[in-house]
Amino acid sequence: MRLLIFHGNLAYKATEPVKISVRDEADEDKWNEFENCLTAFCAVEASDEGRLPEICQKAAGELQLVAERVKVKKLVLYPHAHIFPRKLAKPRFAVQMMNTLTKELQNRGFTVNQSPFGWYKAFKLECYGHPLAESGRTID
Amino acid sequence: MRLLIFHGNLAYKATEPVKISVRDEADEDKWNEFENCLTAFCAVEASDEGRLPEICQKAAGELQLVAERVKVKKLVLYPHAHIFPRKLAKPRFAVQMMNTLTKELQNRGFTVNQSPFGWYKAFKLECYGHPLAESGRTID
Repeated sequence: MRLLIFHGNLAYKATEPVKISVRDEADEDKWNEFENCLTAFCAVEASDEGRLPEICQKAAGELQLVAERVKVKKLVLYPHAHIFPRKLAKPRFAVQMMNTLTKELQNRGFTVNQSPFGWYKAFKLECYGHPLAESGRTID
Repeated sequence: MRLLIFHGNLAYKATEPVKISVRDEADEDKWNEFENCLTAFCAVEASDEGRLPEICQKAAGELQLVAERVKVKKLVLYPHAHIFPRKLAKPRFAVQMMNTLTKELQNRGFTVNQSPFGWYKAFKLECYGHPLAESGRTID
């Protein structure tokens, strides 16, 4: 799993469905806005399949560490296919991973929004620009 | 070399210098704004060293293809260490690659801005959200 993480503000809206076998529901063209949060672009990889609890725990742990360093309690998990996954997981597994990661982070006390899987999305990402405001994590 | 490419609007400002051996000059805290452009987050990799002309030509070719598809003539090359480079190139080589890529794209008729290497930067990235608005390229 790959995570590209930004500290700042985010707004996004679903614009059109991707031609794919699995898709979350989405309020099309409605902006969703978040201030002072961590945005994590997430790519679930084929190598994560069959290792859901382990990868999920590790990913939640890394996100928690970053969130504690920048003192935020709000996260947005944003599926992103282009952040150089070695090989993407099957869509059905990716959705399961995103749902499980959301629950795990909620159990750790975070407010979590999940942007919809299987949609093209417009976004406005404002990154604060301090030394901890951007990071990448590969979860193996 | 890795390129994470977005079609939309970008603003950025240098906030503080990274502790690194090589650094571009920067107007600290001055916002630089670009509408309807391609933003390419760029990570120059160790495997690019000794292959500057070849990698530069290939990267310029890929960026030109994307730019023509979305009909823009304006690009921002934005050094980014966290987009999962296999191993980062030495800073001096990375700067040389960025400068050469800028010139190559200018020779191909594009207006190119290079965001400063070696600085933490705040940014506001607005991605349009159509199917070609986001892509990733690995140049080998």
